[in-house]
Order: sequence, then C-alpha cells, then structure tokens
Amino acid sequence: MTGARPAPRRGRPGHDQTAVLRAAIELFNRQGYDATSMGDLAAELGLTKSAIYHHVPSKAHLLQEALDEALGHLSAVLDEARRDTGRTAYERLRSAVEGSVRVLVDHLPAVTLLLRVRGNSDAELEALRRRRRIDDELAELVAAAVAEGALRDDLPPDLISRLLFGTVNSLAEWVRPQGRYDAGELASAITAMAFDGLARR
Amino acid sequence: MTGARPAPRRGRPGHDQTAVLRAAIELFNRQGYDATSMGDLAAELGLTKSAIYHHVPSKAHLLQEALDEALGHLSAVLDEARRDTGRTAYERLRSAVEGSVRVLVDHLPAVTLLLRVRGNSDAELEALRRRRRIDDELAELVAAAVAEGALRDDLPPDLISRLLFGTVNSLAEWVRPQGRYDAGELASAITAMAFDGLARR
Repeated sequence: MTGARPAPRRGRPGHDQTAVLRAAIELFNRQGYDATSMGDLAAELGLTKSAIYHHVPSKAHLLQEALDEALGHLSAVLDEARRDTGRTAYERLRSAVEGSVRVLVDHLPAVTLLLRVRGNSDAELEALRRRRRIDDELAELVAAAVAEGALRDDLPPDLISRLLFGTVNSLAEWVRPQGRYDAGELASAITAMAFDGLARR
Repeated sequence: MTGARPAPRRGRPGHDQTAVLRAAIELFNRQGYDATSMGDLAAELGLTKSAIYHHVPSKAHLLQEALDEALGHLSAVLDEARRDTGRTAYERLRSAVEGSVRVLVDHLPAVTLLLRVRGNSDAELEALRRRRRIDDELAELVAAAVAEGALRDDLPPDLISRLLFGTVNSLAEWVRPQGRYDAGELASAITAMAFDGLARR
C-alpha cells in the first residue's frame, strides 16, 4: 500500500497513505469521527490541508479504509472457521473466538473504531450490515456446536453468541498495544473462561 | 428527589428534575456529553433554556448526578458482597457479578454513560477514580476466590477480573430496556458461562 515511497525520516512522521490512515484512526477514536476535520488530521501530521488531499481523497474514504481493515480480517477468521468442515463445530467455534481476539489485538485501533460505529453515514451503515452478517454467522456456528452436543443447551444459542463475542469485544476497552498480555494469552484466557469455566472442576 | 412537584401531565413529558435528568442522560449517550448543550436539552423537553435552569444548575451537575446514580448502585453491590463474610469469596464473587448485571440492566442509561467516560472533566476524572476503586475491590474478591481454591489458578486473578467484568459491561452494547432477556436471565447466563463454562461437562 505504501508503494515505492521512501521510508519516513527519523523524528517526523511518515506521510504516506498508511501513516495518514493510522493517524486518522487514532484521531477518530480519540475525538470522534464527526468531530474530526481534515484540518485536525493535517495538524496532527504537521502537514498542510492540501498536502493531506495529495494522499487521500476524503475523510469518508479514511473511515471506509479503517472499517474495511477491521471487517476484512474478522470475515477472514470466520470464513476459515466455516470452511474447515473437517473439524467439529465446537473446535471451529473455539478457533473463531481465538482468531477474533487476535484480530482485535493486532488491529486494535481499526477494531475499536468499528465497535463504536453507530450508523451516522452510508459507510457506517454498510459496516453495521457487515458486522451483523458476521454476528449471524457466529451465532450459526454456536447453534451448530449446541446441536452436536458439545455446548450446554440450557442457554439460547443467540444469547451464548452475544455473551461470547461481547467478552471478546470488551478487550478493546482496556487492552493496550504492547500491553501486559499478548494476543495468544488473551485468546487462551477467554476460551478457558468461556468454554471451560473459571470454577475449578 | 422530585420533592412535592406535581406529576407530569399526560401527553407531555414531565419537567421535574428526574425527567430532566433522564432526558439529559439519553441525549449524552446519543450525541455525546461534550456535543450536547443545555439548549439541546431544552429543545428535547420542549422547554425554554431558562426554564431548564429552573430545574438544574448546570450541564455538569446533570453529568455528576448520572455518574453518581451508576456508581452508587455498583458500590452498593460490592459493599454487600464484601461485608457478607459468612459466605465464601467464590459465592460473594458470583453475587457481585449477578448484582452488577442487575444494576447495569436496571440503570442502563446511567451505566452506559459511566462506561463511556474518558476523563474530560473533573467530574469524569472523579468517576474514573471511583470506577477504578470498584475494579480493584472486585479484583481482590477474585484473588480471594482463587486463594480459597474455588477458581482455577492458571490465569492471573487481575486478568480473570477484567474478563469477567468486561463480559458484564459488554451487555451495555446490546441490551435494550424491555428487551428479550430480563436482568435475572442475563445474570444467570453470564455466571453460567463464566464460572461453569459453555462446554458440556
């Protein structure tokens, strides 16, 4: 995505498209998408407003790119879990949970932005639709794991799905890049709690 | 809190302090505290701006009241769990989780506002301090339940605490007043998943 642009010089941020996108996501998360102007973004990067438009066509385009980043990786995790029919639904569900945790940690700013989307524009409405499709597919995977007898059947599958992925998403509230726990530790801890339970057996 | 004010007339919103507070919390959640003016609030209630000031001294006062509502109820749940030393730490932790779910569902708008606080004012910073104190006390309860041998000891107690109450807080993202599941069902489902696990034993 950065093409043949030279590496940014030390002590000043890189101004290629990737750097602009990273700075935009950070600003959108800090002060809200609606409250962020292209002027704010230019100031953040130490650029003029017209220089910003050399890199990206619009603020909406940056939002779209950010949401695509998060949704693309989440969809990939789910597609893999669904395609892998050699394993039980339960095994595939555990993988989907672990994969979702990894995407959240590895793409924390973009996923945080996605989780805050409320549907105030066409791009946001489309992101909500894609998120809902992913949620529906996860709920189907949960229902399949209940149906095969691997998961408890005294809770409605759609409620299980909401609690399970609510737990994953809640990581965005406190996990920090280079924080105390890495993605693998967080993924193991969530699956241990949710599937095996915290109570000693 | 509403004193001896007459009940609001049918077909038009009540304009006593409670009604103003409820409308303010709803607006703060919908469009953000910073983006909401007392003029917006007046318009929402069909009042003049000066009539609003007859009921409440300031926007900051409304935020304070809302955060106090959420924090007061959450602290009460925790105080009860801590005082009740006739039961094991594990039993008290389960009660604290269930009680937190009930507070979240019964005071959904105020708790939602609390969960979105980022520390942009003195009232918000104080709310964050109180939230942190509650989180620390919950983490101590988790550590006590691990120490007494009731909870698995292969996960750090502070991580267990974060995941557990992250799961509770994630309800605010999708639970709706008069929704499909009541507070009791949600509390049972969360404790069943988190303590006993989703996998069939």
